[in-house]
Amino acid sequence: MASEPIARMSTQLARLPGVGPKSAQRMAYHILQMPLDQARELASAIWDGRKSARLCSTCGDLTAADPCPICANPKRSRGLICVVRDPRDVSAIERMHSYEGLYHVLHGALSPMDGIGPGDIRIRELMERLTGEVEEVILATNPDVEGEATASYIARLIKPMGIKATRIARGLPVGSDLEYADEMTLSRAFEGRLEI
Amino acid sequence: MASEPIARMSTQLARLPGVGPKSAQRMAYHILQMPLDQARELASAIWDGRKSARLCSTCGDLTAADPCPICANPKRSRGLICVVRDPRDVSAIERMHSYEGLYHVLHGALSPMDGIGPGDIRIRELMERLTGEVEEVILATNPDVEGEATASYIARLIKPMGIKATRIARGLPVGSDLEYADEMTLSRAFEGRLEI
Repeated sequence: MASEPIARMSTQLARLPGVGPKSAQRMAYHILQMPLDQARELASAIWDGRKSARLCSTCGDLTAADPCPICANPKRSRGLICVVRDPRDVSAIERMHSYEGLYHVLHGALSPMDGIGPGDIRIRELMERLTGEVEEVILATNPDVEGEATASYIARLIKPMGIKATRIARGLPVGSDLEYADEMTLSRAFEGRLEI
Repeated sequence: MASEPIARMSTQLARLPGVGPKSAQRMAYHILQMPLDQARELASAIWDGRKSARLCSTCGDLTAADPCPICANPKRSRGLICVVRDPRDVSAIERMHSYEGLYHVLHGALSPMDGIGPGDIRIRELMERLTGEVEEVILATNPDVEGEATASYIARLIKPMGIKATRIARGLPVGSDLEYADEMTLSRAFEGRLEI
């Protein structure tokens, strides 16, 4: 159908998340008509980036340097660790520009249905980091079944150590409409109400 | 915010059509967690593809070989040339699996508003192809203002040469609802009605 380089490029691009066969082909045509140096820069950003990517041996975030820039930053509070599921959750939280502690990336969530137990995610590595310095562990796993299960499991391990374990608030998203909120979210929002 | 390889990769991916900053970052994280050989294959499909891409010196389609596989195929009818705006229109038509003629890619459409005149698109190259062998030119430019203008312009050049110039039908898309058709489409569908 399409010529060989277009077909090969489309197949590869269609493996990216959110890219279907049609948009992959559209991207391939775009790339074939790019200036040569732009296409080279795209390909090398992909390959050099992937080649240099490793997990920070401390927090498990994706990084080019080990330790990662966050773990290496002396200004970040060593008493606070925020536990997340994925590296992309780290960048979501960094976008707030207000969190000043460290992270711990689990690379997954507990899910007995899928056979994912505590030994399959980076919980042991978290426990090894909980030395005297750490005062609070913020459990910022997703507010879904697996994320809640993971947060409770970790909280049960941490509390006996005398370290505070907190969970991010569940409630109505800012800018949303109460009328359209689901019952679960609404009941969490009521439970978590704060005095004003 | 995000570490350097992620930022560089996201910037590059966000240049692709239909990719915003958020989906570019999502793709970048996906790529960073890909097996190494998959990332290499993606990068090399992009770079090798772009490097090998050229325009067919006959039809102007994007291709790795010149002449392109369609122009080189002895089974394609040399009496029929389908004129389109972009290389991706060629693959749309090839997906029908029923067109057996050749193509001519204009790489643009007439648009006086944008200063695009007949000398800026591959009309001269089309005229040079209209030797005795060619019986019909199908004008398959888009059914929009620029596409219609381009089709009429080319038809006016071709007709005096005794070559048939046809225009693809405008009408209701298959599976659509007459109630929601715009007046222009509906009036074209009436004008183009066929006896059943």
